[in-house]
Amino acid sequence: MSDPEPIRRKGLDNVIVADTELSHIDGEKPELLYRGVDAQELADRSSYEETAYLLWNGEFPTRDELDGFRAELDERRSLSHGVAEIVEHAPPDAVPMDVLRSAVSATSVYGDAGETTRERALSVLAKGPTALAAFGRTRNGDDTVEPRGDRDSAANFHNMHNGQDPDYRHAEILDTALLLHADHGLNASTFTGRVIASTESDVVSAVTGAIGALKGPLHGGANQDVMEMLLDMEESDKDVSSYLAEMLEDGERVPGFGHRVYKEFDPRAEVFKEIAQEVSENTEGPDWYSMLEEIEQFLREEKRIHEKGISPNVDLYSGTVYYSLGVPIDFFVPMFAVGRSVGWTAQVMEQYDDNRLVRPRAEYVGERGVGYVPMDERE
Amino acid sequence: MSDPEPIRRKGLDNVIVADTELSHIDGEKPELLYRGVDAQELADRSSYEETAYLLWNGEFPTRDELDGFRAELDERRSLSHGVAEIVEHAPPDAVPMDVLRSAVSATSVYGDAGETTRERALSVLAKGPTALAAFGRTRNGDDTVEPRGDRDSAANFHNMHNGQDPDYRHAEILDTALLLHADHGLNASTFTGRVIASTESDVVSAVTGAIGALKGPLHGGANQDVMEMLLDMEESDKDVSSYLAEMLEDGERVPGFGHRVYKEFDPRAEVFKEIAQEVSENTEGPDWYSMLEEIEQFLREEKRIHEKGISPNVDLYSGTVYYSLGVPIDFFVPMFAVGRSVGWTAQVMEQYDDNRLVRPRAEYVGERGVGYVPMDERE
Repeated sequence: MSDPEPIRRKGLDNVIVADTELSHIDGEKPELLYRGVDAQELADRSSYEETAYLLWNGEFPTRDELDGFRAELDERRSLSHGVAEIVEHAPPDAVPMDVLRSAVSATSVYGDAGETTRERALSVLAKGPTALAAFGRTRNGDDTVEPRGDRDSAANFHNMHNGQDPDYRHAEILDTALLLHADHGLNASTFTGRVIASTESDVVSAVTGAIGALKGPLHGGANQDVMEMLLDMEESDKDVSSYLAEMLEDGERVPGFGHRVYKEFDPRAEVFKEIAQEVSENTEGPDWYSMLEEIEQFLREEKRIHEKGISPNVDLYSGTVYYSLGVPIDFFVPMFAVGRSVGWTAQVMEQYDDNRLVRPRAEYVGERGVGYVPMDERE
Repeated sequence: MSDPEPIRRKGLDNVIVADTELSHIDGEKPELLYRGVDAQELADRSSYEETAYLLWNGEFPTRDELDGFRAELDERRSLSHGVAEIVEHAPPDAVPMDVLRSAVSATSVYGDAGETTRERALSVLAKGPTALAAFGRTRNGDDTVEPRGDRDSAANFHNMHNGQDPDYRHAEILDTALLLHADHGLNASTFTGRVIASTESDVVSAVTGAIGALKGPLHGGANQDVMEMLLDMEESDKDVSSYLAEMLEDGERVPGFGHRVYKEFDPRAEVFKEIAQEVSENTEGPDWYSMLEEIEQFLREEKRIHEKGISPNVDLYSGTVYYSLGVPIDFFVPMFAVGRSVGWTAQVMEQYDDNRLVRPRAEYVGERGVGYVPMDERE
């Protein structure tokens, strides 16, 4: 087989490296499809775990299949002793994404070496929320709370993290948030997982790498930035427009706007916006939703949005939802990781089914023919 | 900026994603350059740690600079309590690459969050051998051995793993083995590290991902396969030619031959071949070197080598060298990872210096317009 002609694309823009039947981002319409189903419809009618089943298997589960899938998750939610140690002994100032990455990695050290890919992937989905919640407890000096068999992933996380059951609607909202992050084409973290899988390495290695990629501020993190901006705005006593005017004058980018693929709007943002409004109406404290609306309004009037082709993305309204539900700010990106673990594992399995080792090139632009310089001739 | 035209390349063959001044593989000559210096010459005249300095900094260190670099490694060799727990509590049948990946990941959980990239990278280089050696001890029920300030990485590993100082030449050979694996262009693991770094994530996340990629049998692992073949051959009482003839008849590939880039020979294999001969002459037990020579000879006579454009690669002769030095077979790939950590960290730092988020595309080939199916309508 002869090599194809060399081509330079540092960001791999428009380089197609995989075929997928999992998710489709239609930036024009705009819509996000999971296995052909509109994610907004799923957010309305389905659940995170049902959607995980759909993404993994390509069809909606029957009642028995869904019960079976949930039972498989339930039996894997508890952390083995070794993984629990990593989380519980982590210092309080450890970065939650580092803790999550290490906990997920260690599931295979302290797991059953004979497990199938599917079993390992189930463990990743099941144990991620447990590890995160446990660290949330122990870093505050609280005892950990065991997962319960009669709760789904979202309600379990809320219960394990806050030490009490969420009200029904709060659990449902957290569930929807996870669902909306379940898959989103071939972003940098998902691609990382696929590259690792392309060596025929295991799914835990792939997800561990993907978590590391999501940690990067150019990938995850904008939901956290939005919340920090809101808190700073609230504390500053400035009104929204003068705060933003200063930001823009200083050349800062307002977080939560713009998306590489969605030009008009991000369909996930629509769902989160509705939820943010509902949560804001039912929660004490600052009216985050109104502040966000004012921000959106200000940027639209300033023609900062459509002029630059930017509009609210998933991160603008998701942050205040998490915040109002008691999720700590530095857990926003880890929660994103928990939801996205569905897509990471699904895409890794898809990569295995039609694999080719990923091996691009670097162009050597350094020196040649440099001789070894003996120690006493160096300066 | 308009998008470039779409192009399909699943393996990213001949897609240039980075410029590098670190290593250059000249497949025609053939030679491997580190910062322009022939790796064979470095194997002969330099050391692993001096080469690490060269790759990181682009120039040979003066005596003071090398001493300073070694001191920085020395003060980081010990594992913090949390990382030591992961390793020492790992069950004996845990996969060493899983243990190494988890230990490296946890260096940032149990490290100083304020560390610079360079400091974190130093920790990765320094602690990798310690973690690996500790697991090698504890899985056999032995106490761990602390790193010593007056030993370099290779001698320290040997000492921590075997509980006694190596003889001088053995330490030197292990050092050369690490040096020869220090960097090798943009393979799948190094690319994984770069993709993670492209999100502006940290170097520990990047190396953790890279270890996961190297774990895959399509990437690392051939040195282990060669050794297992030799042991099986030895035990089978068949002579080399009939053993190989059977393998080839069964359609099996003989491990340790062929390389995607080096057509004539792998320059690293030349160095390892000489060392393998030396070690074989000075070690009790089966004459692995002669067996390997016979294998090479047999394949050449069968015209299996040049016909298919394959010749011995780095993995053919490295396995017996490790084996004769007392490195367990399932530590061959982790040792590769320890050496390659130099290249991973160097390429991550190079990525930061001229970064662009890596985000290729997947082509959606699934269904569209699938509606939500209510539970009682599913079958």
